[in-house]
Amino acid sequence: MTASVPTTPATLDVVAIGNAIVDVLARSDDAFLAEHALTKGGMQLIDADMAENLYADMGQAKEISGGSAANTLAGLAALGKSCGFIGQVNDDQLGAVFAHDVRALGIRFDTPAVQGDIPTARCLILVTPDAQRTMNTFLGASQFLPEQALDLDLIRSAGILYLEGYLWDPTQPRAAMRAAIDAARGAGRKVAFTLSDNFVIDRHRADFIDLIDRGQIDILFSNEGEICSLAQQDDFDTAVATIAAKVPVLVSTCGERGAIAIVDGVRYEGPAAPVAQIVDTTGAGDLFAAGFLAAHIDGRSVQDALSLGAAAAAEVISHWGARPEEDLGIIRDKLFL
Amino acid sequence: MTASVPTTPATLDVVAIGNAIVDVLARSDDAFLAEHALTKGGMQLIDADMAENLYADMGQAKEISGGSAANTLAGLAALGKSCGFIGQVNDDQLGAVFAHDVRALGIRFDTPAVQGDIPTARCLILVTPDAQRTMNTFLGASQFLPEQALDLDLIRSAGILYLEGYLWDPTQPRAAMRAAIDAARGAGRKVAFTLSDNFVIDRHRADFIDLIDRGQIDILFSNEGEICSLAQQDDFDTAVATIAAKVPVLVSTCGERGAIAIVDGVRYEGPAAPVAQIVDTTGAGDLFAAGFLAAHIDGRSVQDALSLGAAAAAEVISHWGARPEEDLGIIRDKLFL
Repeated sequence: MTASVPTTPATLDVVAIGNAIVDVLARSDDAFLAEHALTKGGMQLIDADMAENLYADMGQAKEISGGSAANTLAGLAALGKSCGFIGQVNDDQLGAVFAHDVRALGIRFDTPAVQGDIPTARCLILVTPDAQRTMNTFLGASQFLPEQALDLDLIRSAGILYLEGYLWDPTQPRAAMRAAIDAARGAGRKVAFTLSDNFVIDRHRADFIDLIDRGQIDILFSNEGEICSLAQQDDFDTAVATIAAKVPVLVSTCGERGAIAIVDGVRYEGPAAPVAQIVDTTGAGDLFAAGFLAAHIDGRSVQDALSLGAAAAAEVISHWGARPEEDLGIIRDKLFL
Repeated sequence: MTASVPTTPATLDVVAIGNAIVDVLARSDDAFLAEHALTKGGMQLIDADMAENLYADMGQAKEISGGSAANTLAGLAALGKSCGFIGQVNDDQLGAVFAHDVRALGIRFDTPAVQGDIPTARCLILVTPDAQRTMNTFLGASQFLPEQALDLDLIRSAGILYLEGYLWDPTQPRAAMRAAIDAARGAGRKVAFTLSDNFVIDRHRADFIDLIDRGQIDILFSNEGEICSLAQQDDFDTAVATIAAKVPVLVSTCGERGAIAIVDGVRYEGPAAPVAQIVDTTGAGDLFAAGFLAAHIDGRSVQDALSLGAAAAAEVISHWGARPEEDLGIIRDKLFL
């Protein structure tokens, strides 16, 4: 199915559906990861008991709003894009923190908070001295985002619907995201999807391939490991070529080696942006996506989009937390002088 | 009254009574402070409504455990001192954050959390580009710390009882601190007191002077403005001399000009420690006190105590949040090579 021609102009740039989550970041070391059998650089889902136990063992922490798609919106909003977010928090203090932070960025966020015993999601993030982050996610209220919580008019009003792969795991948000795709495409909008994590791909490869095969994804974000996993290819270039044949815009970050994009069959490469000191890599991929999309929305060249993605990622890894702190608009304006 | 001779050796170095508070830190600018009629560099108490309104207007924030005395203990613990904390949180998520963070530092913290509608204290901190912090404190559960919540055996077991002047405002903690002073001095322990803030001194000058006149304070921490306000003297040296006559150890920080200490009538001066970039001055005074006290407990010279205070303060103002991030033990060992 190809997208319909939009019947009305979009009034928002991007609406995202993602985990509504507060990051709990603490310094750690390799020994701590080993003791707790954690795989460095990965994301694992944990239940309430493990969340409690791991938190009790962790060092002093900082709480900073996160969530992959919400981080991307934070970057887009900082770059002047009009955005809306859909995700579910509990009516608790961390839910209030998440909601405040997303609204403080000028992002529309109206998904009702749920009452009851299932708290707002949090991600226990251990940052090792090499600046790598190891994420342990307690999904809480986020994983029960019901289809009924979607504001379909909001989705239809945005030029791009952005979906977070992490949220494909739980049943209700998966159904909600399918409904959102239908709504967006029915209104002639584009759908962007981020693959999020190798383990998520392992669990849902068939779904993701099916979406791609049916032409439901217009813009796909990934990293090297993810695109190889999705295509079940060891070779990055082969993997990229395989998937790019079915996706108009395919973007893959390659860590410190930069990123590539294949747009309508043409391959582009861009270097990583320099960083004085890498402090915490949490949010690097999310902000790359933000920079790339912002330039893409502005009708800039693919090369410019890769550059702005790299610059936004460089900013976010230079400090704690997965949301930008410097003015990304100033960074962009310097880049495109 | 002079302190009794201790009947048993202290098993803890320091027990502190202070606000159990989570800092909510956001970037701000002078225009925002002006619009909200906030006095830069100060601390004001705000009620629940103002907390809600100010928070709604503030930008995206970070939540980091704070509280003046608790910050000082964090520094002391990082410097290898054994510590206990007394302060009241609610049984809510921010209370759990505060308790986790203080315990993660190895600090004993057993004050029961209260149930009910009065949430854990938070301090809305606006950090301007000049790295100054402007604090707006909603005291919540912290201001209802009852005397019955004190663990008097814990207080008697510590060589030093450390008290936060901020907590003199509310009635219940003030009564609790008076009882704590009696318990500590009855067991022959020392009492350290931090003046905290000019406005607190304005409200409680008579109480503070009375404590000092009666020889209840062994170690007094202040800054220039506070000691001048306490002594009601415009001239810093006159103010210091006036108060030092009645306090065995008087310490006053002087911002970027360093700090002075008057110990048993002898005056010592120490410079501020260099900082590559001052990011957020929240906690500077608290960590100065930590460094000074740690060296004092170790029996080092007053000059060393001033140096370690300066080094600990320099660390905490080089990043967001009022608790140390670098290993203060390494910083101390380099200093005292």
